[in-house]
Amino acid sequence: MITLASDFGTPYPAAMKGVMLRRTDARLVDVAHDFPRQDVRAAAFWLREVLPQFPPAVHLVVVDPGVGTDRAALAVRAGDHALVGPDNGVLVPAARELADGAGLDAFEVDDEGAASSTFHGRDVFAPAAARVHEVGVDAVSDLDGVAPTDEFVDLRFPDPAVGDDEATGEILAVDDFGNAVTNVPGGFVDGADEAAVNGERAPVAPSYAHVEAGQRLVTVGSHGNVELAVNRGRGDEAFGVAPGDAVRLET
Amino acid sequence: MITLASDFGTPYPAAMKGVMLRRTDARLVDVAHDFPRQDVRAAAFWLREVLPQFPPAVHLVVVDPGVGTDRAALAVRAGDHALVGPDNGVLVPAARELADGAGLDAFEVDDEGAASSTFHGRDVFAPAAARVHEVGVDAVSDLDGVAPTDEFVDLRFPDPAVGDDEATGEILAVDDFGNAVTNVPGGFVDGADEAAVNGERAPVAPSYAHVEAGQRLVTVGSHGNVELAVNRGRGDEAFGVAPGDAVRLET
Amino acid sequence: MITLASDFGTPYPAAMKGVMLRRTDARLVDVAHDFPRQDVRAAAFWLREVLPQFPPAVHLVVVDPGVGTDRAALAVRAGDHALVGPDNGVLVPAARELADGAGLDAFEVDDEGAASSTFHGRDVFAPAAARVHEVGVDAVSDLDGVAPTDEFVDLRFPDPAVGDDEATGEILAVDDFGNAVTNVPGGFVDGADEAAVNGERAPVAPSYAHVEAGQRLVTVGSHGNVELAVNRGRGDEAFGVAPGDAVRLET
Repeated sequence: MITLASDFGTPYPAAMKGVMLRRTDARLVDVAHDFPRQDVRAAAFWLREVLPQFPPAVHLVVVDPGVGTDRAALAVRAGDHALVGPDNGVLVPAARELADGAGLDAFEVDDEGAASSTFHGRDVFAPAAARVHEVGVDAVSDLDGVAPTDEFVDLRFPDPAVGDDEATGEILAVDDFGNAVTNVPGGFVDGADEAAVNGERAPVAPSYAHVEAGQRLVTVGSHGNVELAVNRGRGDEAFGVAPGDAVRLET
Repeated sequence: MITLASDFGTPYPAAMKGVMLRRTDARLVDVAHDFPRQDVRAAAFWLREVLPQFPPAVHLVVVDPGVGTDRAALAVRAGDHALVGPDNGVLVPAARELADGAGLDAFEVDDEGAASSTFHGRDVFAPAAARVHEVGVDAVSDLDGVAPTDEFVDLRFPDPAVGDDEATGEILAVDDFGNAVTNVPGGFVDGADEAAVNGERAPVAPSYAHVEAGQRLVTVGSHGNVELAVNRGRGDEAFGVAPGDAVRLET
Repeated sequence: MITLASDFGTPYPAAMKGVMLRRTDARLVDVAHDFPRQDVRAAAFWLREVLPQFPPAVHLVVVDPGVGTDRAALAVRAGDHALVGPDNGVLVPAARELADGAGLDAFEVDDEGAASSTFHGRDVFAPAAARVHEVGVDAVSDLDGVAPTDEFVDLRFPDPAVGDDEATGEILAVDDFGNAVTNVPGGFVDGADEAAVNGERAPVAPSYAHVEAGQRLVTVGSHGNVELAVNRGRGDEAFGVAPGDAVRLET
């Protein structure tokens, strides 16, 4: 199984599929191709949430603002999974989650001689993902043009500061519904009836429809973190927050 | 085969796919993940149109504004098909169409202990759909945590009032092209050269390009109902209608 | 393998998938369903770029503003591939590319008696694509209701006028990133450090990130043609061009 994720929209992902299907009969599964354009951090967040749901697979990820520069092409082995994509950090949070505490084995993939310098998704990463799939995750190092490396661009999401009744964190992402995901663990609002978000109070509720339509709430999202939401509305707008913003929670 | 439909956008549907692919090798087919957000009625309409095109399958449907409340989780057996989703009516019109006049067998799926209260698509419905697929549509009742029920939320689309030369109905949906679908059977405009829509006359034509670009027409859509359209334009805007609006047709 | 491409958005492509899956177990691969609406030329361009990446397949293409008129339904054999869709030119540039210099074998598909006059994707083209897949590309002419034809609507993209230091061409397409693709071969800017685009100079660079964020560049896209771009921005807006516009390049 090979999953595909990118910020390409269409039809570029189909070109990657064609390239892979010349080399493998693997099942192909789209994760998303509308990640915020060239936003490595947003893609890294969502991949960390979604990829661990999959059985062992090769994950092709192309959010690649540095295509055609000297940034390296990577394959990363993480548990029974492998990730293939640019060396800009986008693979790393998901890889750590998939490795589940074990180390990551990173490999640099030779991208010399790519047919284009603007579409390595088609010319470098898709062929590499197909090759990794065919040889098997445990045998990545047997592939030609693939060499172990200890150096890769890291990407870590900030840790929140969590006290008994106050937590300071960050908005990690906003989903398509407008739910704003913080990095504060959901446990912080356990047992609270309401919480102040940047000084404004809102009810704490187990899910959206526990408040009236249009009303704000603080809940715990499917990622286990505190989430700022509006029932049948957009939490990001109601709370006035965007990815990267600091957020202070009080119970 | 398992089909997936939701109002999730991305990447949440991929999480559901991962969950299912841990449990089944079934073919997965996306129906749509951009149904109007939290609009049970719109999703129910399109599912009724599209799902009957499929061979026997399990249909996972998650348009679920009541997630995390006490709304039940349902599996519905309809002919050789099964549908899995929230008990808010979204499954029912398609299920009736698939059952083709036979009754529906509804089952409540236990959703106690779901890992989240905000993403039952991942934590309740996707696992249930995979289990239904693996056990087979005829053996749904053999599954643990699945119990027959006679009670479920119904959803019916309104019947039009159709006379010889006047019909009163409703706009059921507007598609991505802007075509406004009524609930008036296409037979009403049979043989007519033009029709009045809420008092304004427009030509009746067998398809869009029978009128000039930008011109309005009344046609019979692929669902067999009267449709209000504009050749290479948006019928909803030209006729000033939206889903739920009443519409009066005269020939 | 059957690929699908259309301007349908959702959920109409799912209806086509259901129809095909009643007739074949083929792998289905989406190319794009958000081609610019009813824009035959744009779809033809992207299909020419993407379909040749695939191994032998049947390609179902439905961008069909003339549905329900007397435009014919076509199947075209091109090398080991076949294309199925409306006779409006949309299949032709990709078919020529797939045929790789060999001739095209075109067949008219009988569309009398289609269940609708507004959705031939579901009622004519999807069943035809499934039948072509099942009988095999080489045996298209054995199918009932399929007859060889020498007449079909052609579509050719204009040739540029390329001199030593001046080229005059056209914008063929703009991708989702805003990159404007010309019909001028990339070789024209070989060795140049900068180029004038309609009189305004911009650097020539091997890929986007070789210039500062927000800066314009002239590069060679993955299609091998000169492309007008902005690093982390939209080239079409910065250069003030749209598909169909003439463009003059000087080095």
